[in-house]
Amino acid sequence: GVEKKILVIPGDGIGQEVTAWGQKVLMAIAQNYHHTFTFEEGIMGHVAIEATGNPLPDETLEKARRSDAILFGAIGHAKYDNDPTLKVRPEQGLLKIRKELGLYANLRPIKLFDELLEASSIKPEILRGADILFFRELTGDVYFGEKIRTADRNTASDLMIYHRYEVERIARKAYEAARTRRKKLCSVDKANVLEASRLWREVVQEVAKEYPDVETEHMFIDNAAMQLIKDPKRFDVVVTGNLFGDILTDEASQIAGSMGMLASASVGDSTGFYEPIHGSAHDIAGKGIANPLASILSAALLLDISFGLKTESQRVIKAVEATLRQGFRTMDIANKHTVNDCIMGTDAMGAKVLENLN
Amino acid sequence: GVEKKILVIPGDGIGQEVTAWGQKVLMAIAQNYHHTFTFEEGIMGHVAIEATGNPLPDETLEKARRSDAILFGAIGHAKYDNDPTLKVRPEQGLLKIRKELGLYANLRPIKLFDELLEASSIKPEILRGADILFFRELTGDVYFGEKIRTADRNTASDLMIYHRYEVERIARKAYEAARTRRKKLCSVDKANVLEASRLWREVVQEVAKEYPDVETEHMFIDNAAMQLIKDPKRFDVVVTGNLFGDILTDEASQIAGSMGMLASASVGDSTGFYEPIHGSAHDIAGKGIANPLASILSAALLLDISFGLKTESQRVIKAVEATLRQGFRTMDIANKHTVNDCIMGTDAMGAKVLENLN
Ligand SMILES: CC(C)[C@H](C(=O)O)[C@@H](O)C(=O)O
Ligand SMILES: CC(C)[C@H](C(=O)O)[C@@H](O)C(=O)O
Repeated sequence: GVEKKILVIPGDGIGQEVTAWGQKVLMAIAQNYHHTFTFEEGIMGHVAIEATGNPLPDETLEKARRSDAILFGAIGHAKYDNDPTLKVRPEQGLLKIRKELGLYANLRPIKLFDELLEASSIKPEILRGADILFFRELTGDVYFGEKIRTADRNTASDLMIYHRYEVERIARKAYEAARTRRKKLCSVDKANVLEASRLWREVVQEVAKEYPDVETEHMFIDNAAMQLIKDPKRFDVVVTGNLFGDILTDEASQIAGSMGMLASASVGDSTGFYEPIHGSAHDIAGKGIANPLASILSAALLLDISFGLKTESQRVIKAVEATLRQGFRTMDIANKHTVNDCIMGTDAMGAKVLENLN
Repeated sequence: GVEKKILVIPGDGIGQEVTAWGQKVLMAIAQNYHHTFTFEEGIMGHVAIEATGNPLPDETLEKARRSDAILFGAIGHAKYDNDPTLKVRPEQGLLKIRKELGLYANLRPIKLFDELLEASSIKPEILRGADILFFRELTGDVYFGEKIRTADRNTASDLMIYHRYEVERIARKAYEAARTRRKKLCSVDKANVLEASRLWREVVQEVAKEYPDVETEHMFIDNAAMQLIKDPKRFDVVVTGNLFGDILTDEASQIAGSMGMLASASVGDSTGFYEPIHGSAHDIAGKGIANPLASILSAALLLDISFGLKTESQRVIKAVEATLRQGFRTMDIANKHTVNDCIMGTDAMGAKVLENLN
C-alpha cells in the first residue's frame, strides 16, 4: 500500500456537507486496498474570513504545500455577493491557492452516466455518448490581471492578459490527453475581437504542429457556447482560457444531467487539487439535500491523477454507477417524469455509495 | 405613410444571401401600407477590406449617419480566423460602426415559435413558454478597452473596463422594458472575481431602487450559462455586459431552435441598427441554404423600434409564423425526427414569407 497525506478543505456552504463524503470514500478505499491515507483539515473562504480575517490563512497554505493532494469543497457566501464593495472576499482564497500552488491546468471531464440520460433538460438522443474533457487554464487571464477602481469609484477595470508560456503549457497538456482519447482538440477563444485570444490562437496553432495526429479546431466562444448544447458529441478535448472555461464548464454541466455530478482536478507544478464544479450553493446549504457525488467523483480523480491508483479510482466510479443503477437519487438528479427513483439527502446518498464500495 | 431612408449592409458570407430577404420584406411592407422607404447600400467587413482596404469605409459611415435605420447582415471571413496576426480585420468595421453611432444597447429577443418546439436539442417541456429579452451592452467592456501586444509578441492583453454611466444607461433601458413585460430583471456579471463586474453590480443595485415594481436578481455568468439551459423560463429580461452578452445570446439561440431565427436591434443615441445574431457562417456561405428568417425578423424589429410601425412589424412576424405553420423549413430548423417538413433553400423560404405577407 501507499502512504499519502491528504488535506481536506470543506470551505463554505454545501462544501461543508459534501466534502465529508469524498473523504469517507477515500478512507474506505484506503482500508479496502491497504493504503495509509492521513488527513488534515484546513479552512478557506468565508469560514476562514470569519475565523481569521483572511480567506486563505498561511496555516492552510502551509498544510497544502506539505500534502500529497487536496480535496476541496466550495467557496462563497451571499453576504459578499450582495455587497460588491466588500474588500476581503472568500473567492480570493481560492484564487490565491490556485496561483500559489501553480495549479494552471483545470481538468473537467463531462460524461453522462447512462442512468441519468433523462435527468437533463437536453434531449437524450443529443446527449447519448457525449464525452468531453475540458482543459481550463486556471492561473492567468482576466482573473489575475491587474484590477483597478478609480478614486471616484466610477470606473473599474480588469486586465485580460496571457503570456505565451501559459498558453503553451496548457495546450500541451490538452494535446497529450487528446492523444489518449478520440484525437480531437477544440481550442476556444474570441480571436476575432481580443488580442489575448489572438495570442492564444497563434500559440495553439504552433503547438498543434507537434501533434499532427490530433485534429485541431478553433472556435469562437460564442459559437462554442451554442455548439455545446446543439451537438455536444462533436467535442472530445476542449482547451480554453480561465474565463471562457469557467463559463463553458458550468454550461456543460447540463450535459451531465446536473452540476452535482461534476468533479474537477487542478494540476500543475506540484500538489493536485480536487473539487466539485458546483459552488457553495447558499440556497440549499445546511438543508442536507446537496448531491455528494461530485465530491466523491473528485476523490476518484484524486486517486487516479495524484496517486496513480487507477484501479481504486475505477472502483469509486463503479460504486457511483451502481448507486444510480439502484435508483437512488438526490434532488438535483431526480427525474421529474418518473416516480421510480428514490430521492434521498446528502448523507443517505453518500452512505449508499459507501455500501457499494464494499 | 411615412418616408424613411434605410441603409442596407449585407456584409460577408451568408449576410449577402439573407439580407436581400430582409430588404424585400421591407419593400413589400412599404407597398402594402403606403410608406416610402428608399434604400441605399453600403459595404463593410471583408468585402470592404477587399474593395478599399478599410473594413468600414468613411462612405459607409456617412451613409449610416444620414439613414433612419440600418439593416445589416453579417461579418467575418475564414482568412482572418485562420491568421490571427493579420492587422486589418473585418470585425473592426462592425465594432467601429457600433461605437461611432453610439449603439450601446443591443436587444436580443429570444422566443420560440411554437412550430419549432421540436427543432431544438432542448426538451420541449423545458422550452414551452420561454420568452427572454436580452439587453447586451454593446460599446464598452473588453471589446473596446486598450489592446496591447508586447514587442516580442509574447504577451497580449485587453482591458475589461466599465464606466458608471455606461452601466446606468443600459440598466435603465432594461428596467423600462421589464416594466412592460413580466417585471423580472436578471443582471449577469462575475462580481465574485472581476472589479468591472463589481461596479456593474453596484450600479444595477442603485438603478434597481428606481424600479421597485421590478424584481431584480443578480447572477454570476457561469451560473447563468447553466440556468439558461436548465430552466430558460425563469428569465424575463436579462441585462449584461458586452462579452457575457455575446456568449449568452448565442447559447440562448438553442432556446429558439436555431441561430437562424434570431434577430437583434442595436440602439442608442441615434440611428438604429438591425442584424441577425448569426455570423457570416463561411461553412455554408454561397450554398443558398442559409435561413433568411433572422434577417426578416430583424426587419420586423426595425419597423417596430426605429419607425414605430407596430402593426407592420406584427404583420411580418405573422407571415413568418404562417410560413412555419405551413411546414416550410430551412435546413437548420428542420426536425430530423419527422418527415413532414418541406426543407428549402434561402430564396424559396424568403419567397414563402413574401407570399404570406400579401
Ligand atoms: C468561485 C469562483 C471564483 C470559481 C471561478 O470562477 O473560478 C468557480 O466558479 C469555479 O469555477 O471554480
Ligand atoms: C462578429 C463579432 C465581432 C460579433 C461580436 O462579438 O459582437 C458577433 O459575435 C455578434 O454577436 O454580433
